[in-house]
Order: sequence, then structure tokens, then C-alpha cells
Amino acid sequence: MDFAVGIDIGGQTSKLGVVDRDGNVLNGTVIRSDTYGTDSNAFISALADAVKKCIADAGVSGKVCGIGVGAPNGNYYTGQILNAPNLAWAAGQTVPIAGELSAGLGGLPVTLTNDANAAAVGEMTYGVARGMRDFIMITLGTGVGSGIVIDGNVVYGHDGFAGELGHVNVVHHGGRLCGCGQHGCLETYCSATGVARTARERLAASVAPSLLRDVKDVTSKDVYEAARQGDRLAIDIFKYTGTVMGRALAGFVAFSAPEAIVLFGGLARAREFIYEPVVKSLNRYVMPVWKDKVKVLFSSLKESDAAILGASALAW
Amino acid sequence: MDFAVGIDIGGQTSKLGVVDRDGNVLNGTVIRSDTYGTDSNAFISALADAVKKCIADAGVSGKVCGIGVGAPNGNYYTGQILNAPNLAWAAGQTVPIAGELSAGLGGLPVTLTNDANAAAVGEMTYGVARGMRDFIMITLGTGVGSGIVIDGNVVYGHDGFAGELGHVNVVHHGGRLCGCGQHGCLETYCSATGVARTARERLAASVAPSLLRDVKDVTSKDVYEAARQGDRLAIDIFKYTGTVMGRALAGFVAFSAPEAIVLFGGLARAREFIYEPVVKSLNRYVMPVWKDKVKVLFSSLKESDAAILGASALAW
Repeated sequence: MDFAVGIDIGGQTSKLGVVDRDGNVLNGTVIRSDTYGTDSNAFISALADAVKKCIADAGVSGKVCGIGVGAPNGNYYTGQILNAPNLAWAAGQTVPIAGELSAGLGGLPVTLTNDANAAAVGEMTYGVARGMRDFIMITLGTGVGSGIVIDGNVVYGHDGFAGELGHVNVVHHGGRLCGCGQHGCLETYCSATGVARTARERLAASVAPSLLRDVKDVTSKDVYEAARQGDRLAIDIFKYTGTVMGRALAGFVAFSAPEAIVLFGGLARAREFIYEPVVKSLNRYVMPVWKDKVKVLFSSLKESDAAILGASALAW
Repeated sequence: MDFAVGIDIGGQTSKLGVVDRDGNVLNGTVIRSDTYGTDSNAFISALADAVKKCIADAGVSGKVCGIGVGAPNGNYYTGQILNAPNLAWAAGQTVPIAGELSAGLGGLPVTLTNDANAAAVGEMTYGVARGMRDFIMITLGTGVGSGIVIDGNVVYGHDGFAGELGHVNVVHHGGRLCGCGQHGCLETYCSATGVARTARERLAASVAPSLLRDVKDVTSKDVYEAARQGDRLAIDIFKYTGTVMGRALAGFVAFSAPEAIVLFGGLARAREFIYEPVVKSLNRYVMPVWKDKVKVLFSSLKESDAAILGASALAW
């Protein structure tokens, strides 16, 4: 059994591919996730067909040991996606995807976890966290996710939902409203959308000149492009983002004393602008015993492959 | 090998006792910790003598499988106490206590951990956390310590110092100065000394009548006594303490999704005044998926025995 299948389910598309033991993705492919309305069965059926085709095209029929799936709000213990607002067919409802996908694939074992945990497993198996037994993966995308590895194992907790560090409160008074219903969550400051919110606030709060003043509906990508052109306001936005993140990381370090924090996802591309503020703020707020001792790393995996690799690693 | 020895090293005294498999403490005894100046060897030698006498008096010579030691800044991996400010003979220096105590006891195995981790092990072995695989122990004494259990194991982290939740930042701006050198640590609000600080602040900030106005150098015990007499200001102090704690706990829950939080230590005796504010604040700030789902429990172990039991449980 030399192959596994990795599946990364996202709001718009789902990526899948056959993965060999060396971490090569064979026949990576993409299907839509958003054309099935609220019909989870239709999506799972299309996904099963795509997996079958992918296995057949790779010429590895009968050689696949299992399927790993990463999905928003995916629960490792139950194999269910529980109320994932970004997936129309799993919004406000529970979808037993592991069991149903397995049934659609003639009983091949299917392991589910949330997307950030899958990324952590991928990083530990194929990326910069290889050989590490204690690290924290922070995924910086539209939201902020996390996968926590302690003594070589992903932390699932009592109910399978551990590792929601994007929803730790980082601003106590007057914090931004989060999609989860709380105020001041890390995600509202340190995600791509958080960066865009900071940009809007900064632009409104000052009259400082900035390339961003010419942009309609500023996105984090716009901020990145402006920063690369030396725009002071844009650079300050990343500085603020990194400072908030570093302070939050200091608290996470006090919890599990990791060897490293690994940053991953779209916003991690702005590495040149957030690395220094993150590290400075982390070491400013962390207990003396950990000052200058915890590594801050960026994922080394190609982003398009990382999600598939991470999910597939669950199956080994 | 039906017996173990548990040792709890504190700033003023160290408690030790032989423990049987049912959690009964035999021949519990106490020695001073604070009469050896900076001479760690003298302390360890006195401790070894006390252990030998305790084993002999209990009539279990040759039947002890090992020694468990809980101590401030005790490191499980290295067997060393690393710079414990409250122990004169370990302040600013590293004391390899596990190895030296073992040598003084003819090679009996000695396992060291920090005091809060020992309390967590005790609670898991003999207390309210029996049968739980995921919980967080918070020790509320002069400081705030923590022992985190995930999937049945104490979290030690990369370096053995994991679980310093007393030093998570809970007030970002203008937070109180902590002994660790940071500002706004949980410990500065939710320890016995934190309660006393809150009392001084509250007394200075208002002219509200209070029994505490007649007390010189208010302690958390004074606040407790006043609260029991219905003193409004004292009750409000515990309410504030519990609210700050509950908000911090919400963040810890997002990390490891525990089945329960177990509160332990002197301040936990004020249960009647802090339980409700803690639970209310926890459920106010926690993500919806955990609302009203995480138990808040108080240790069921007799405090004088708990530290010995916890330490001894390390030895099994």
C-alpha cells in the first residue's frame, strides 16, 4: 500500500490528489465545492467519482491505503463536518462525510480532520516541522486556523475541536466583531480580511498619503503590493498585524512550550513585512524562560500541494 | 512495589509522605525548606534523611518503587529546578535535585515536575479528574500555576516548561507588573496576592463602606472573611477576579478543548464567591461550540495531602 489520497475541501473548490510515500502529488485535480446548494449527498457523490478517477488515472488502483480529508470544522473523532458556514451543504447542519465517502469508495478508510490540523500533519510529515515533536501551525488565510502538535501528536481535545487559536481574544475592549459571534478574536486582526479591516481603519483615521487611497475595496493583496513599493502606511499595517500576532503567540507558547511556530497560508507570503514584527512582539511578551528561544518559521510547502499533502498524511 | 513517596517542595516547608496504591498518605511529615540559605546540598541531604525516616517509620523499607517530587520550576526532562525565586537555594541557579536525591537514597528512581503538574497528576489519579483524558488544572495560591493534561498525558512541551498559564497576558494596556517581569499576567489578578491588589485598588478608588477599611495590609483571606459577612466590596472583588479568570479560561479552552477546568489551591476555597463569575465569564467569552459544555470543578483532594499525592503519582 504505497499510496494515499489527500483531499482539501474549501468553500469554492476542493483539491485532491494521489500522494506517494515521498510526498509527491500525482494527478492533482480540483472540483467545485459550491455548485451543490445544500445537497451534501450530491457533493460527496461527485467527490467519490473524482477520487476514483484520480486513482485510476494515476494507475494505482488497489494500491491506496486510505483517504485523508481536511475540511473546515471537520471532526477527527466523529468523521463529521459540523456546521461549516463557508460550505453551503454543511452550513447549519452536520454532514457525516467520512462514513459516506468511504461507503462511496467501496469501504476504503477515510480519516477526517479540520484543514489547519491537516496542514500541521503535512508540515510535520513533509515540511519545515519534520522531526519536531512540539510545534504550533498557524494558518493565515481568509480566517486564522491552527493545528497544535504536542509530543508528536495533533491535539484534538475532549471533543475533537481543539486548536481554535483564531478565536482567542486578543483585544478586550472594543475588539472587532468576529464571524464566530465574539469580539476581539485573533482572526479579526491577523487574517487576510483582518489586514483589510486594519487598512480601512488606518485610511479613515489619518490623512497620511498612501498608494492605498487610490484603491477601491482594499484587500490584503493590495496592502502587500503597496508595501512592496515602499508605502509607509501599508508597511505599518503589516507591522501592526505582526505585533498583535506576536503577543497572541506569546500566550500560546506559555501553554505548550513549542519548539517552533509555523506560519502558513496566503498572508504568510507577506513574510518580509510581518516576520520581524511577529518575532519582536513574541519576545517582548513571552516569559523570560522562552525569550529568543522559540523559532518562527514559514511553511516550506508549495501552497497548492500542501493541503493535499497534509490531508494525505492522515491516511498513512 | 506497593508504595511510592511523594514530596512537595514549597518556599517555607516541604511536605512528604509514603503513599499506597489507594491514595492513602502514611506518615506524612514536614521539613523546613528555608533554613539552608543558598546551600542546596544541605537541603537535599536533609530531605534524603527525612525520606529514609519516613519509609522506615511506615515499615515499608524495600517496598517503595520510587519518589515523585513537585517543586516550583521543576523540569521533568532534566530533573533540575531552574531558578526558583522562592527557594533561596535555587534562586538564580540550577539545582539537579532528582539526580542528587536519588544518589542520596541509594539509587531509588526520582521523578521531578513542577508543583502544578504534580497537582494535575494527583487530581487525575485520585481526585475529580479521575477517568478524564483532557483537563486543565489551575492552581490558585500565592501565584497561579497550571498543569495541562491532553489525551491522558501531562503536557511538558519542547523544553519541559509547558503550562505556565499564570503568565498569559490578560490585560493588554496598563496591566499590573508581575514577578516574571511582564505586565498584565493572569497571576497578577487571580492569585491570592492578585486579590489583595484588587482590594487595595478598589478601596483607594471609591469611598464605598467596607469591612476591609478597618484592616491593615489586606490579604485575600481578609477579603474572603469580609465576603462571608456579606461585604459588598469584598464580594465584588471576587466577582472581578472570577470574571478575569473566566475570560482567560475561554482562551485556554480554544487551545486544548478540555472536558473540565479544575481549580485548586487557597483561593479555590472562595468557591462560593468565584464559581458563578468564572462560569459566566467563561461562557461569555468562549466560542459557541463550547458554550455551557466545559465543566468548572474544584479539587476534591484535601489540600495538605494533595501535593504529596500528586507528586507520588509521578512515581507509579
